[in-house]
Amino acid sequence: MNQSELMLKAVSLAEKGKGKTFPNPCVGALIVAGDEIVGQGYHKAYGSDHAEVEAINDAVSKGYDLSLCNLFVTLEPCNHHGKTPPCTRAILESGLKNVMIGARDPNKHVAGGGAEFLQQSGIRVTTGIEEQKCMDLIADFTVWQQTSRSYLYLKMASTLDGRIATREKHSRWVTSDASRKKVHQLRSMVGAVIVGANTFYRDNPKLTCRGLENENQPLRIIVTSRLPEPGSDFFLLKQRPDETIFWTDLKTSASSAADRLKNMGCHVMALDKNQNGLDLNQGLTRLRQDRNVHYALCEGGGKLGLSFIESGLADEVWHFIAMKILGDDQGVPVFYGREPKFMHEAISLRMNCSRVIGDDLWIKLFPKKDIAP
Amino acid sequence: MNQSELMLKAVSLAEKGKGKTFPNPCVGALIVAGDEIVGQGYHKAYGSDHAEVEAINDAVSKGYDLSLCNLFVTLEPCNHHGKTPPCTRAILESGLKNVMIGARDPNKHVAGGGAEFLQQSGIRVTTGIEEQKCMDLIADFTVWQQTSRSYLYLKMASTLDGRIATREKHSRWVTSDASRKKVHQLRSMVGAVIVGANTFYRDNPKLTCRGLENENQPLRIIVTSRLPEPGSDFFLLKQRPDETIFWTDLKTSASSAADRLKNMGCHVMALDKNQNGLDLNQGLTRLRQDRNVHYALCEGGGKLGLSFIESGLADEVWHFIAMKILGDDQGVPVFYGREPKFMHEAISLRMNCSRVIGDDLWIKLFPKKDIAP
Repeated sequence: MNQSELMLKAVSLAEKGKGKTFPNPCVGALIVAGDEIVGQGYHKAYGSDHAEVEAINDAVSKGYDLSLCNLFVTLEPCNHHGKTPPCTRAILESGLKNVMIGARDPNKHVAGGGAEFLQQSGIRVTTGIEEQKCMDLIADFTVWQQTSRSYLYLKMASTLDGRIATREKHSRWVTSDASRKKVHQLRSMVGAVIVGANTFYRDNPKLTCRGLENENQPLRIIVTSRLPEPGSDFFLLKQRPDETIFWTDLKTSASSAADRLKNMGCHVMALDKNQNGLDLNQGLTRLRQDRNVHYALCEGGGKLGLSFIESGLADEVWHFIAMKILGDDQGVPVFYGREPKFMHEAISLRMNCSRVIGDDLWIKLFPKKDIAP
Repeated sequence: MNQSELMLKAVSLAEKGKGKTFPNPCVGALIVAGDEIVGQGYHKAYGSDHAEVEAINDAVSKGYDLSLCNLFVTLEPCNHHGKTPPCTRAILESGLKNVMIGARDPNKHVAGGGAEFLQQSGIRVTTGIEEQKCMDLIADFTVWQQTSRSYLYLKMASTLDGRIATREKHSRWVTSDASRKKVHQLRSMVGAVIVGANTFYRDNPKLTCRGLENENQPLRIIVTSRLPEPGSDFFLLKQRPDETIFWTDLKTSASSAADRLKNMGCHVMALDKNQNGLDLNQGLTRLRQDRNVHYALCEGGGKLGLSFIESGLADEVWHFIAMKILGDDQGVPVFYGREPKFMHEAISLRMNCSRVIGDDLWIKLFPKKDIAP
């Protein structure tokens, strides 16, 4: 394996910790002797050993002389005392002479510190190996560092021709069981699931994680200017209503419909309006500040998803494409709400990777522009 | 590399011959000693050595003892005299003791012959390694064997949300330069390019292969019930009109508009009608019988593409997806013309592979159902 492949292997390792490390980033590390991986580690949970230390301990326990090995680490090693001693010290003490770093630390208090300190201590440091992939790995951490809001996943699932339901609104199921299982895993990682009004009224979703019917379920958020009627028979009103939140405008939040929902145990939260509609940034900020939600997941529909993207708030897009064609221009489109005249006005995203999941294709995308504050 | 990886490597080799072997199939072969590939070959052109013979000669020229090697070949070796002596004889004479075969020969005169003959001669034969990928590799050959028509590629290119143009019909460009280059390569391989009326009238396409402005250009076919007006200023009428063919219904083909086109040098061909509209199978059959076109390429639009798929005539679909969102439900959809009520009525395709091309994703798909006669 070459340098790039080794770093991507460290990224894969790091991803095992996703959802368990916040507010720390996910990090993966390898100790390599010649062509052989002799130690590996990743940051498993907040407060536990950092990836570099895990990898060093792994190689040392097998009896390797680290002065002859290279360290590959997805993120610049920390140079300060947090919950654990600085990784730079562990690296120096290990005898390692050669350190390969994926991404620099986006944390302004740290950036530059670790790499420069190691170099000044006589270690050969190379940075920027698979930098974009390593940056994408900690996109969540970057948002937490630079903003006060939750990190937002946007999940969409469509046919090859961009439809999520037939003209009769029939949608079960677009994607295969394996893709839906992957979405359930994502739901079990996030603190809140967000849907738009059309999805709520049309699909009457449960938004639960399969196999976890009673514990550790995410908050459910409905973004709507129209609150449900009295006597409505929606799952989200009947099951755990105290974990259901309506995001709506100020006037609607003061209506009698809002009072009825509150009496049922639901929450109704007023958001300010901006040029894009409701201020979704305000909602995500309240989620993190008041509810300690580090990850939120929007599952559509197409108009709400597009609002998150256009507001610069969709930090990571998971798009599942089923290899099927509906072929109806009146089918429900995966995205709508814009009216561009020219193709170059389309919103461009950056593909991180794509993978076959069951019969479908899963594409992970990131915004091209800077994240919103 | 394991057996499966070795066979896929042979498939990749075989693909280098695509477009040059007809009416023979593409075939790739490897000679493997232990873990090492010591010989390789593919069928380069009709009349030249078969892949097995190329690979054997390659390994022998390097001095390997083939009795200690394995042969991996994507298609069952032929057992009859065609333009070249049978490959089974070359295998026996080489001393090979172990043959791994991807797909059985779909040619009824051959199928079973090669593998059984080798087994009866004392060689260990394993069949069905990566069989689907090896069958897909020769999907063209299967169509030529079982029908009298051209093999049809359908190429579509859309945004992530399934649009090919804005509501103002602006479409240049959906995909990146690398994808368009790949389409030009495909055009240079096929004998005819087919478009629907909307694409012809809206885009005024040239349908040429870049870098090949004057030689070896494909025939251009427009499928339409409405012929262009006198004095129309379309590229396909002005440039090489004798290579432009209109497929239309019987009545239109006898109109004065048809006469004008013929006077300009264009061809107008009447096709029968069936329940799906024009009998496209008849068109493809005439192309192969009268024009010796082995490969045809439909480049849309969405209605014609869907007609080919629904008629079972789209033998291989190349779908390019640009990582951009138009987000307009009035944008031009990549497919239209159906009105299914339920999601399970969508047309399912089978993904063969997907690959990153420039900024886009290229997905190669095959129909799930049997090919049309």
